Amino acid sequence: MQNNIRNNIRKIHATVLAKIKPTPEEREKLAELARKIEGYIVEEGVPCEMVGSAARKTWISGEHDLDMFIMLPTTLSREELEVEGLRIAKSVADRANSFEMRYAEHPYIHARFGEYRVDLVPCYRVNSVRELKSAVDRTPFHNQYVLSRIRGLEDSVLLLKQFMKRSGVYGSELRVRGFSGFLCELLVLRYGSFLGVLEAASDWQEGLLIKPGASTDASRRAAGVGAGTGTGTDADVDAEIAPGNPWEPLCVIDPTDPNRNVAAALSLDQFYTFVDAARGFLAEPSIGYFFAEPKPRMTEHEILAAIAERGTDLLAVVFGIPDMVEDIVYPQLYKMEQSVLTLLKEHGFAVHRSSVGVQVQSAGGEGGAEGGDNVVLLIELMSGSLPPLMKHDGPPVYMRKHAERFKMKFEDEETFSGVYIENGRYVVDVYRKYASAKHLLESKLLSCALGKQMYECASLGYTVLEGEEVVYAADFEFLSRFFR
Amino acid sequence: MQNNIRNNIRKIHATVLAKIKPTPEEREKLAELARKIEGYIVEEGVPCEMVGSAARKTWISGEHDLDMFIMLPTTLSREELEVEGLRIAKSVADRANSFEMRYAEHPYIHARFGEYRVDLVPCYRVNSVRELKSAVDRTPFHNQYVLSRIRGLEDSVLLLKQFMKRSGVYGSELRVRGFSGFLCELLVLRYGSFLGVLEAASDWQEGLLIKPGASTDASRRAAGVGAGTGTGTDADVDAEIAPGNPWEPLCVIDPTDPNRNVAAALSLDQFYTFVDAARGFLAEPSIGYFFAEPKPRMTEHEILAAIAERGTDLLAVVFGIPDMVEDIVYPQLYKMEQSVLTLLKEHGFAVHRSSVGVQVQSAGGEGGAEGGDNVVLLIELMSGSLPPLMKHDGPPVYMRKHAERFKMKFEDEETFSGVYIENGRYVVDVYRKYASAKHLLESKLLSCALGKQMYECASLGYTVLEGEEVVYAADFEFLSRFFR
Repeated sequence: MQNNIRNNIRKIHATVLAKIKPTPEEREKLAELARKIEGYIVEEGVPCEMVGSAARKTWISGEHDLDMFIMLPTTLSREELEVEGLRIAKSVADRANSFEMRYAEHPYIHARFGEYRVDLVPCYRVNSVRELKSAVDRTPFHNQYVLSRIRGLEDSVLLLKQFMKRSGVYGSELRVRGFSGFLCELLVLRYGSFLGVLEAASDWQEGLLIKPGASTDASRRAAGVGAGTGTGTDADVDAEIAPGNPWEPLCVIDPTDPNRNVAAALSLDQFYTFVDAARGFLAEPSIGYFFAEPKPRMTEHEILAAIAERGTDLLAVVFGIPDMVEDIVYPQLYKMEQSVLTLLKEHGFAVHRSSVGVQVQSAGGEGGAEGGDNVVLLIELMSGSLPPLMKHDGPPVYMRKHAERFKMKFEDEETFSGVYIENGRYVVDVYRKYASAKHLLESKLLSCALGKQMYECASLGYTVLEGEEVVYAADFEFLSRFFR
Repeated sequence: MQNNIRNNIRKIHATVLAKIKPTPEEREKLAELARKIEGYIVEEGVPCEMVGSAARKTWISGEHDLDMFIMLPTTLSREELEVEGLRIAKSVADRANSFEMRYAEHPYIHARFGEYRVDLVPCYRVNSVRELKSAVDRTPFHNQYVLSRIRGLEDSVLLLKQFMKRSGVYGSELRVRGFSGFLCELLVLRYGSFLGVLEAASDWQEGLLIKPGASTDASRRAAGVGAGTGTGTDADVDAEIAPGNPWEPLCVIDPTDPNRNVAAALSLDQFYTFVDAARGFLAEPSIGYFFAEPKPRMTEHEILAAIAERGTDLLAVVFGIPDMVEDIVYPQLYKMEQSVLTLLKEHGFAVHRSSVGVQVQSAGGEGGAEGGDNVVLLIELMSGSLPPLMKHDGPPVYMRKHAERFKMKFEDEETFSGVYIENGRYVVDVYRKYASAKHLLESKLLSCALGKQMYECASLGYTVLEGEEVVYAADFEFLSRFFR
């Protein structure tokens, strides 16, 4: 890398860090709250551990999240753990401004202390990873793994997280399907620095396997840790093509469990969006890869003009859902999207693009349980209508039994043609059942694989909008993103 | 097979043979002409051989074709053969009502003696197949091969030929791409009878290899030769899946040359059309499998109604060609058809069906060289127009070099979208160059693989007709077949 580029990158890093690195005051405030909460828990005679980015000093300035794990003895039964854990968590949360119960593998408390959001999570205190009783118990081990290795690399983690946020690939929640904070830390450990990660990622190909190794201090130091330069290579860390799980573009072995992929939530397109951004930044470094001006929303007039100019046919499937956890809604939405596209394709419609999202039903509240939200599945078709005639493919002629049944079936049906032979198969030109994509979805949406909750919601009623009608159903933010 | 079906089939065979088997008088008349022509040739001091169906008594009543080979010594050079051969052929043809010169591997004379069409073909008289000097020289060996084996099976050959004619699969000319007369004879030899061929064909699958074997008299007799019953199986004939030439559905090894496929001209769909007809006849034997009432041509009104009801978009490419040999025109037409369909598909048009043919340009002559003929390529599209927007696929993201070039290319182009990532590839929504299939063909027909002569003809000018316009270009016979 040339010196002037290197200097440019250094300047960018400094500018970015000045904005995202917590100040000593911010750190002290957080540490103070953490100590206070630790005190409350210890008062109950139970040890606790602060985990997550706050514990590792890899949180981005302005984020005020604190994860506190309440470590209970393994002598408790699962039920006792829940009861006792929640009792302690509540006794802490009683001092908070507000709190609510949330559910992961077991219940925990989400509390607000002033501007801070604090998760109080009961778990078992086990001596080694082999003794884990639930997935939650693993978190303290992740914490220890990173804590003991990350010193001096915190800035790289911060830069990587901010870079990923800007690219829209940060977060392992099922809406985003991107990179988790823990994954960012493992990548920095693996490649020695922010730039090391970007340089490696520029050559990534789906199917990549990254095995964790104890990244030695020596190798990290030699790579110029902390200055954000150089590419660290760990002698005891291997990368090769992963054999299994072809649907997972990246496999990063969990250092606490060789059977667990830390990057399991990452989608193929998010994987490559990061690869593409990494290449872009290295080719032409700029602050724009960390912070972007928000694009103005398109106006109704602009959206209508875009629809007209594209000449395609737009459809929107819309139905209401109650307030639900994103991680439950989004996998079902993505499943529904694929299933609906398959239905359309099976009926001869050429799909150009699609997008699915959840938007607030009424402007008067932030997705409250009362008004609920709307699911909007937007689909752009080359044409929403097809001719009445359709080719129906039958069996290859050589399959005699199938052939007989096929010919029998169409003997008495009204068709455009007799059964004829094309490319070695029987075919017959029949009347298309659904010449309109709108009618198809109106009739068959519920036969698609929608996921349990989405099926229940759509069963209560859904609307299929066409063409300009979609402007009055989907919000302009969503449509603006679709048309750009 | 049940007895009543067997009896029914016997009756059908008898009825068919009564119509197609030459009478003794017809045979005698042909034999008389053959003797006369043999006499003329022998007068010139050269031996000759009558070949083809006339020689083998496997011609269908009413057909008056006679193939006479003039056997010249191998001491002649190729040029001398042509000069001397044509001299003798002409001396014979001088007694005919009319004659013309035609060209295969070398020139020959086509003469009319009353109602008879006689081909006078010079060839080398070689002692064995190994000494062949041209493909024409092989014919007398084919003739000997069949002559020495076919006695008693002539009726089966006649039935098979008539059955194939009715199904539209008889003839190895390149317009038909079906079964030649020689191939019919080999099949009857292989399977012992007409019904034997049909029963075997009912289970045929593309990729079939049939090796010729000297079908012993014993095995043929045991199979009930001549009565058209039973399935002859020759112990020394093998059928298995052929290894090579995946584009040839059937490989029947030439008994005079193990490297030659007698069924090389047969297309996949003609192969299966025969298979399908064979099954149909065996399931429900009827005279309709040998003779069909000609279907009435559709009227203009009916054709226009069919176009409207189908709702598809019709296109016709039309241009004039001079009077040409079918075997030269049709391979080029089929090639053009495939190439044009590929062009349309590449530009996003969904093809339903197509057909190509040659029709007389003016009603006032039988395809005379003056008026010439018209090529008509008819194409039925799901839609002849597409939206302005089109997805343009780029390289997979991991191919870094290609990715850079792709992104550079679209940086300054006007597009509907930026380059984005979908399913691991770069894509970009661009403006479609040809939103109308008619315009596409008007601009790009000549860039298709048309074949030498078709290219030359189309270069002089061609028309692309759309929708109802095709009614005024394609003849109603052709359109009637297309819509049924």
